[in-house]
Amino acid sequence: MTAGQTRPPGGIGGFHAVIPAGGAGTRLWPLSRQGSPKFLHDLSGAGVSLLQGTVRRLRPLVGDRVVVVTGAAHAAAVCDQLAEPPGGQAPRVLAEPSPRDSMAAIAWAAATIALEDPDAIIGSFAADHAIGNPVAFRAAVTEAVEVARSGSLVTVGITPTRPATGFGWIRVGQRLGSFATACAVDRFVEKPDAPTATAYLDSGGYLWNAGMFVVRAGVLLDLLDRWHPELAAGVRDLAAGQRTGGEVWADLPAVSIDHAVAEPAAAEGLVSVVPGAFDWHDIGDVAALTEVASGDHQPDELAVLGDPDQVCAVDASGLVVPAGDRQVAILGVDDVVVIDTPDAVLVVARERAQDVKAIVDALRAAGREDLL
Amino acid sequence: MTAGQTRPPGGIGGFHAVIPAGGAGTRLWPLSRQGSPKFLHDLSGAGVSLLQGTVRRLRPLVGDRVVVVTGAAHAAAVCDQLAEPPGGQAPRVLAEPSPRDSMAAIAWAAATIALEDPDAIIGSFAADHAIGNPVAFRAAVTEAVEVARSGSLVTVGITPTRPATGFGWIRVGQRLGSFATACAVDRFVEKPDAPTATAYLDSGGYLWNAGMFVVRAGVLLDLLDRWHPELAAGVRDLAAGQRTGGEVWADLPAVSIDHAVAEPAAAEGLVSVVPGAFDWHDIGDVAALTEVASGDHQPDELAVLGDPDQVCAVDASGLVVPAGDRQVAILGVDDVVVIDTPDAVLVVARERAQDVKAIVDALRAAGREDLL
Repeated sequence: MTAGQTRPPGGIGGFHAVIPAGGAGTRLWPLSRQGSPKFLHDLSGAGVSLLQGTVRRLRPLVGDRVVVVTGAAHAAAVCDQLAEPPGGQAPRVLAEPSPRDSMAAIAWAAATIALEDPDAIIGSFAADHAIGNPVAFRAAVTEAVEVARSGSLVTVGITPTRPATGFGWIRVGQRLGSFATACAVDRFVEKPDAPTATAYLDSGGYLWNAGMFVVRAGVLLDLLDRWHPELAAGVRDLAAGQRTGGEVWADLPAVSIDHAVAEPAAAEGLVSVVPGAFDWHDIGDVAALTEVASGDHQPDELAVLGDPDQVCAVDASGLVVPAGDRQVAILGVDDVVVIDTPDAVLVVARERAQDVKAIVDALRAAGREDLL
Repeated sequence: MTAGQTRPPGGIGGFHAVIPAGGAGTRLWPLSRQGSPKFLHDLSGAGVSLLQGTVRRLRPLVGDRVVVVTGAAHAAAVCDQLAEPPGGQAPRVLAEPSPRDSMAAIAWAAATIALEDPDAIIGSFAADHAIGNPVAFRAAVTEAVEVARSGSLVTVGITPTRPATGFGWIRVGQRLGSFATACAVDRFVEKPDAPTATAYLDSGGYLWNAGMFVVRAGVLLDLLDRWHPELAAGVRDLAAGQRTGGEVWADLPAVSIDHAVAEPAAAEGLVSVVPGAFDWHDIGDVAALTEVASGDHQPDELAVLGDPDQVCAVDASGLVVPAGDRQVAILGVDDVVVIDTPDAVLVVARERAQDVKAIVDALRAAGREDLL
């Protein structure tokens, strides 16, 4: 099935979404808190949380077949946010006893799904990304599912628009003749330095690694057997109920799906990529938030993520997030981000977005756990 | 009596304090509001409001003889703030039907006091100034009272510490032989430009005009008779109960005591000045607030006006006023002023302090009277 075809209400047959919803989002404080991490908040201005937006975006592709994997502390909040109206079905939520990075979370979901549907294809999509063009997104994922049926590990790579040093990049290999746009992956590249990123962008032969993987659940577990057999065995036992989370989880290695499987598989020519030509934002810090909120704004304008009536600005640029039920006024300050919440307000230079963790560390040192 | 002598508990005999408490304080928004102007707030970090601090500073000089003149809308709040503990006596409060600048307010108080004490000497002190050294303040005022007994209009001039363009300056004339430090006033100078202010500072022959006037009530009213007879007649009738505020007030000219009396009197050699060597701040905008709060801070440090535990700063300078019962965090921003209140937070470049009115105007244009 290609993007132009009508899709059944239940989505693509045998295709399941896995949404790892982890990460404290420290750099998004005070919006993101330990008890209420970033994916539970509307950080894209869409009127729904990032997590809700992720599920909505996937529904046409997977119907009710959604598994969210999140920390035990957030499982209740996740269930609350994803409770469906009558007739629909809420996603299944798997609660991790402790954070073990993305591989354990995705593998647990894969093993759980494979038990019920041995031929299942899963697609893993982070809970804290924002995507601008859902039609292009669905077209790319639809092709990725076709490619995955052939047995490869497929990633959706984003067409880069700037020499970003904060993302991983994918070196694109030869075209796979039998698909519309898919190519082999030569290799994954860790966050490059600025000159390297510029060269990648100029070459036209690289895509951004958005951490979206589409693969047969069985293929993923088989690959995992090769490089992390203890992890594969652990999640299989867990899914089958042969061991409990308490017995298995603490001993699993904390490793990302990129390191655990995608990079070694790429080295063996087992990974494919479908280029995705859609706006994509990994909302990792307040600078990324500014990008998302800016949309069509000029860089010298002030973007607002929230109700514009709660912001009064004169000669200011950057971003204001009025999430504190109060007025935010800003005068004569450029490239600043102001995040207002009911119990804390942050004023940060946009170029220092990466350092918000320093504020969180200082508050922790001061014993202000109530604010973290 | 000189500053070294013991002063009776009731202060200096026949000396009365007049405190004009007016002005919206628009440039101090969101601390200062229409319904709660700046003098009702603790803007000096002293633990009491500017008005309360003004009264406390004057008590040793005037005992219970204090008259506050304020807008009718604020009279109740003023009375509440100045209610005394048992045994003391609250100041008398005169409520102006509408704002008429400082001359009408001071003259009304002078006429009221003169009715009861024809020989009274009054000293007028704004409700929104902060003073660093109360001993030096009292010494200067005490000498000013001595000088005023001789019949002149006496001002206390502040020893300047920088080429301030925002204040009026006083050109000091010859010494008055019979007093410790008093001199004649050659003339008052309106806010000078920067080169002129620098020349004044370097010359050593100028003082800042702090708007503090000490004078016999009868002398002040006689001077007013010469230049604003309608104003003098109006406040005399009002004080005597011969006409009501409704009959008198609306027709009075809105003029400052400087323009109405001090400047023309200086031209005739009728004004004296006592130099005051104390820290003095006219808290007119957030930049002045920063000066007061900074105290011994270096310019590249962050000052806090309020509870330091409510502020978390990394690589920031300027001022934070945490008056909103919330945490204020600031990272990587210099020379900025953040004022947090329960219903509004302001972020303003220190150099734009004078323009805060633009925010107030914008809020008014947006119909947000609730925030003004």
